[in-house]
Amino acid sequence: MAPRPTPADKFSFGLWTVGWQGRDPFGHATRTAIDPVESVHRLAELGAYGVTFHDDDLIPFGSDAATRDAQIARFRKALDETGLVVPMVTTDLFQQPVFKDGGFTSNDRDVRRFALRKVLRNVDLAAELGAKTFVMWGGREGAEYDVAKDVQAALERYREAVDLLCQYVIDRGYDLRFALEPKPNEPRGDILLPTVGHALAFISTLAHPERVGLNPEVGHEQMAGLNFAHGIAQALWQGKLFHIDLNGQRGVKYDQDLVFGHGDLLNSFALVDLLEHGGPAGAPAYEGPRHFDYKPSRTEDLDGVWASAEANMRTYLLLKERAAAFRADPEVAEALAASKVAELGVPTLGEGEGYAELLADTSAFEEFDVDAVAARGFGFVRLNQLAVEHLLGAR
Amino acid sequence: MAPRPTPADKFSFGLWTVGWQGRDPFGHATRTAIDPVESVHRLAELGAYGVTFHDDDLIPFGSDAATRDAQIARFRKALDETGLVVPMVTTDLFQQPVFKDGGFTSNDRDVRRFALRKVLRNVDLAAELGAKTFVMWGGREGAEYDVAKDVQAALERYREAVDLLCQYVIDRGYDLRFALEPKPNEPRGDILLPTVGHALAFISTLAHPERVGLNPEVGHEQMAGLNFAHGIAQALWQGKLFHIDLNGQRGVKYDQDLVFGHGDLLNSFALVDLLEHGGPAGAPAYEGPRHFDYKPSRTEDLDGVWASAEANMRTYLLLKERAAAFRADPEVAEALAASKVAELGVPTLGEGEGYAELLADTSAFEEFDVDAVAARGFGFVRLNQLAVEHLLGAR
Amino acid sequence: MAPRPTPADKFSFGLWTVGWQGRDPFGHATRTAIDPVESVHRLAELGAYGVTFHDDDLIPFGSDAATRDAQIARFRKALDETGLVVPMVTTDLFQQPVFKDGGFTSNDRDVRRFALRKVLRNVDLAAELGAKTFVMWGGREGAEYDVAKDVQAALERYREAVDLLCQYVIDRGYDLRFALEPKPNEPRGDILLPTVGHALAFISTLAHPERVGLNPEVGHEQMAGLNFAHGIAQALWQGKLFHIDLNGQRGVKYDQDLVFGHGDLLNSFALVDLLEHGGPAGAPAYEGPRHFDYKPSRTEDLDGVWASAEANMRTYLLLKERAAAFRADPEVAEALAASKVAELGVPTLGEGEGYAELLADTSAFEEFDVDAVAARGFGFVRLNQLAVEHLLGAR
Amino acid sequence: MAPRPTPADKFSFGLWTVGWQGRDPFGHATRTAIDPVESVHRLAELGAYGVTFHDDDLIPFGSDAATRDAQIARFRKALDETGLVVPMVTTDLFQQPVFKDGGFTSNDRDVRRFALRKVLRNVDLAAELGAKTFVMWGGREGAEYDVAKDVQAALERYREAVDLLCQYVIDRGYDLRFALEPKPNEPRGDILLPTVGHALAFISTLAHPERVGLNPEVGHEQMAGLNFAHGIAQALWQGKLFHIDLNGQRGVKYDQDLVFGHGDLLNSFALVDLLEHGGPAGAPAYEGPRHFDYKPSRTEDLDGVWASAEANMRTYLLLKERAAAFRADPEVAEALAASKVAELGVPTLGEGEGYAELLADTSAFEEFDVDAVAARGFGFVRLNQLAVEHLLGAR
Repeated sequence: MAPRPTPADKFSFGLWTVGWQGRDPFGHATRTAIDPVESVHRLAELGAYGVTFHDDDLIPFGSDAATRDAQIARFRKALDETGLVVPMVTTDLFQQPVFKDGGFTSNDRDVRRFALRKVLRNVDLAAELGAKTFVMWGGREGAEYDVAKDVQAALERYREAVDLLCQYVIDRGYDLRFALEPKPNEPRGDILLPTVGHALAFISTLAHPERVGLNPEVGHEQMAGLNFAHGIAQALWQGKLFHIDLNGQRGVKYDQDLVFGHGDLLNSFALVDLLEHGGPAGAPAYEGPRHFDYKPSRTEDLDGVWASAEANMRTYLLLKERAAAFRADPEVAEALAASKVAELGVPTLGEGEGYAELLADTSAFEEFDVDAVAARGFGFVRLNQLAVEHLLGAR
Repeated sequence: MAPRPTPADKFSFGLWTVGWQGRDPFGHATRTAIDPVESVHRLAELGAYGVTFHDDDLIPFGSDAATRDAQIARFRKALDETGLVVPMVTTDLFQQPVFKDGGFTSNDRDVRRFALRKVLRNVDLAAELGAKTFVMWGGREGAEYDVAKDVQAALERYREAVDLLCQYVIDRGYDLRFALEPKPNEPRGDILLPTVGHALAFISTLAHPERVGLNPEVGHEQMAGLNFAHGIAQALWQGKLFHIDLNGQRGVKYDQDLVFGHGDLLNSFALVDLLEHGGPAGAPAYEGPRHFDYKPSRTEDLDGVWASAEANMRTYLLLKERAAAFRADPEVAEALAASKVAELGVPTLGEGEGYAELLADTSAFEEFDVDAVAARGFGFVRLNQLAVEHLLGAR
Repeated sequence: MAPRPTPADKFSFGLWTVGWQGRDPFGHATRTAIDPVESVHRLAELGAYGVTFHDDDLIPFGSDAATRDAQIARFRKALDETGLVVPMVTTDLFQQPVFKDGGFTSNDRDVRRFALRKVLRNVDLAAELGAKTFVMWGGREGAEYDVAKDVQAALERYREAVDLLCQYVIDRGYDLRFALEPKPNEPRGDILLPTVGHALAFISTLAHPERVGLNPEVGHEQMAGLNFAHGIAQALWQGKLFHIDLNGQRGVKYDQDLVFGHGDLLNSFALVDLLEHGGPAGAPAYEGPRHFDYKPSRTEDLDGVWASAEANMRTYLLLKERAAAFRADPEVAEALAASKVAELGVPTLGEGEGYAELLADTSAFEEFDVDAVAARGFGFVRLNQLAVEHLLGAR
Repeated sequence: MAPRPTPADKFSFGLWTVGWQGRDPFGHATRTAIDPVESVHRLAELGAYGVTFHDDDLIPFGSDAATRDAQIARFRKALDETGLVVPMVTTDLFQQPVFKDGGFTSNDRDVRRFALRKVLRNVDLAAELGAKTFVMWGGREGAEYDVAKDVQAALERYREAVDLLCQYVIDRGYDLRFALEPKPNEPRGDILLPTVGHALAFISTLAHPERVGLNPEVGHEQMAGLNFAHGIAQALWQGKLFHIDLNGQRGVKYDQDLVFGHGDLLNSFALVDLLEHGGPAGAPAYEGPRHFDYKPSRTEDLDGVWASAEANMRTYLLLKERAAAFRADPEVAEALAASKVAELGVPTLGEGEGYAELLADTSAFEEFDVDAVAARGFGFVRLNQLAVEHLLGAR
């Protein structure tokens, strides 16, 4: 049976996940709204440790100050009652019509200024609630038509915005970092910073790159046919996995936001193994929240909503158990060695060696027995089969 | 009619492109080999200015020194006779069985050392022939199985290799830069540095990032469903478009390497417009070679090979004409203005403005008329239709 | 310049296309509703000949009889005033929450019965308005989870529904045929009858297959990476192209519903060539309406809506001109012959030949010169380049 | 632990699977050839019951009669020694250059006649060896360029070929059926009959449709982003699942041919459940061979080849165990009922009911409580989670 989640597992959920009413491009809402206060209580009962939100999830867009304050106060009270924390806050620059061509990179400068103001205000709220990460998904920053967007200018404006926000947070002394969330498309035909790679590259151009990392989402990378565990590994390697969005996606299609594990299960196994244990050659594990950004299918009623929330955590915990058993299995250890997986952790050059010494090493080239080395089998299929069998609970 | 290509157009071809014999995963070769010397002559006659090659294209793998020297001498002679230059040389770390798990990132350290030696030797040849760019496509650097490759260790080894090569080139005083070529998959299930973004991000971690840029290929980005013109824009924006591989791809599938323009024609138009004219808000044009990395379909005989080579250049030149007309059309200028395309080049903050001033500007938030601004139409469809009609030669 | 559309071009639009308000999974409506009566007038002014609708586009779901009748009367009046016809009517079994698991194939039998009743009523309206085609897009007939839907039972129910509707139409003496519209996914994870092929196969199992054909949509096939012109060719070959939905899609991703030609332009050219001229070996052209099922991007205001409607027709007419020129060009005729395109229209067996005669023909095997025949080039690249240059208006 | 395979499990392998030498579009062979006789013995030792082949796998293309006979005799001897059967034979119309534009649908009529002769000869061999199924994968029947292939003419020729083959088999009295194998692309840009659906539709047009069914392959459908279990369900529903090719594919990309289960594991679970137990509402199970059409990764040596062959069977058997437990679990039965999965097996119309009675049933429409029915949750997520947990061996 699946172990029961506890706050020590660091599971968190967005208010907009369980709160999704089932409105999609071809259909009306199938569920009523859930009061954020109720969500906090239900998530706490299920074993979560944290809750997250977009500004507009908690406070309807355009609310006056009194409504806003009251709503925040009610929410704080629920947090206090349940012990739930707010590890992350995020911003909504996509739902309102004013952001139809983006927020930070709208062709309309008035919109860009308004977007910055909206985010600055939300950053204050995030800091006030003790969030450590501020996620920015630029879902509307993009284009459908190649001639309608100067991508270089857009990236320039994107940088201007993120630099300003970093300066603000630094000056205010907030203990808050930013995490960009890449996505290749939907709702725009092409979104800027479409993958983990593009976002990492962008960060390297910022004034305060140390303040900015990533919040990659399983389904977003898989919508580009990319290997999510690989993307996470590169983010970790560059020290930029600030937060993570777990969910499920079944291939290259529209954004499904299924329950974690209800998509590519083998890749989910590799992901949990990496997050929990770090790289096989010794790179460290991930310490942050395990955040679910999914949608309870619109076929479900409210009972189904909470069952789906629970399903995310159960699957994660089961995969964690399977990964632990995989790592502990002596046959796996032997297979990993046969596949030379850890040998990739050994530098290619010896101690103190440079190209001159390498060029002088005739065993590396002049006397290298190409055919003999080429004939060595790597045993990868056997190793993968061991992973499959551990995943299936068959070992 | 299409204008005739001349060396001033800076068109170049890989020896392996026209020289492809049509061997694919399900079929044997359909054409005989072409002598590289003949290719040089034919390409020169067609109006190309440059020719490129992998070491193993010119000199069969495992050749002895005499064969190697003779082959290089014959090739040089052909260059001298035709005036063709070698703007780029690249390396083959993928065809030989010894590289079945990669070159720089093979789990087998012996292979990694051999790979480095093979590349160092080829770098010398590139410098000797006056190439300014050394392309590295790491097509075998990757994995089929998530548990069989420590991606973080692999990136560490990749960096080790590129750092060593940079140091070598610097120390030798070669006027040579490296260009990485991303690809998401095929022949490996997942290739490391799968997109323009991932490769740019990787470069930011290098010891000599200024020495390393990109050689993006149309089809490779499109195999991940990404917008190639967007990727090129980000590469340009980061100063990293060192070289480019032009070809055609029809969607997310196996690597097709069709003639340039025989895939996504609208995106090809946007690409040529960007390369020739730079960004609409003023970013500069691309100055490097227009390199075709395509395969003449295996249904073609040798006449078809040369016809296909010509087709690449004709399409490029036609698109260049169309893009020039598009930029010069007053109706387009008016539509671009209505769509505020150049307004994205204007900083979001005013001269001397910081967040404090922005926060003080009530017109940006407190008095911002969200509904009025939201109601403004961007006119993107009309603008795109103008592009389509220019592309069709109908304006 | 693009020719002006006239009713003779048989262009039609869905009310839901120009009427789309821009609501998407991540954003609210950006435009106000358009009165269907206004749409009829505007489309007539632009040169359309027909207008189509879902029941719920014209008459809000749940309207009482009086509202329904009044709405129909106003609509009829607009048709009379403009001369627009209603060549097709379709049904909405996807927007209302009650259809969240489908209409004809919902696991809930009560829903299935309600769905049939809703459609029967709408069929009456279609007949009353003189429509000749009744389209059924089963966008909710599907599943996200493999264990939650018995696909064989679902196909059985689907057949039961279509058989009943055919019987009804026959018995009533309606001059009305059904056209199924395939789509691979979105809004369901997997939709039943996902492609042109699956729907054609399903039709072959029906009680009245002659009454049922297809309404394929450009983007829907392309969302599965399939060649739309190929799919249309198979539908034509099986006598089943009853109607067509023209639009634009940029690859395997969410359903974009762009303007026709704003996606894969080369494939659009081939499509228009096929629809207008039939197969090169003599198969007949398509005679039905050229129906646009697209969405004006949500970045557009109402002016942009009508500009986008016009853009669909302009592009179609330009492609029609280009295709006519392609067919008329003697160089193309020569290239087609060299590629043996029409030779595929010649039966493989000679007059009166069967397998016995073929087995007796030693020239076909025993004396067949495999190498000589294999060496023949097909000249496909040259032929395609001619198509590209015609498309670009360069010949 | 995984149970050991026995002949009763009806596992079969193609000679070309274990025999694949690792040649891919970017690399040379990494393994030596395996004598088919050795493969027969090794597969028998591993517990397989059958072996299959293309003509050219067993007998090199162009062999003289004596070589051919000798090779067949050696193979027969191995079959006799091991007890392995040949349940299926297939044809190679793709590797030889002469088939570069296809076999049955090459634009070149000479090639089409040669192709038919090659297949007729191979059909005799299939019958002689007792095969019950003759698979035809038309991997070269297709095009890269839309204007270069008259798809309607091609389908006409395809039908001509299959009709002739059926007539031949009928006249000879062979107990042999044909199974078409769909694939969307690779090695051609677009292949004719790209999916299970298109092939089923084509079959409905044949002279002897009862003689022709399908051999769907996991990866081929998944290369089009389609749900393989859904495709198999439709094939079963139309009585056309004559044979099946099991393997693994990781999404929309080149054809990977991984070990079964090393791709989309959840869909593999649903597939095995369907094959072994039939539809939940009572449709029958599949009785034919479980045929693996995969490629041992080219990183593997010969030991890895046999380990990979074994892995296919182990995974299948484990999934079979998991599916049996899923079906037997009372909680699953309860969840299936709550999701009304079997209710879809109940006709929508009552006994003796037609549209007249349905129209008279006011409970179905006039008095139907839309909101109440719409509010019912389907519980699909919970049901899927039960499947996931069974798959993980956690229940």
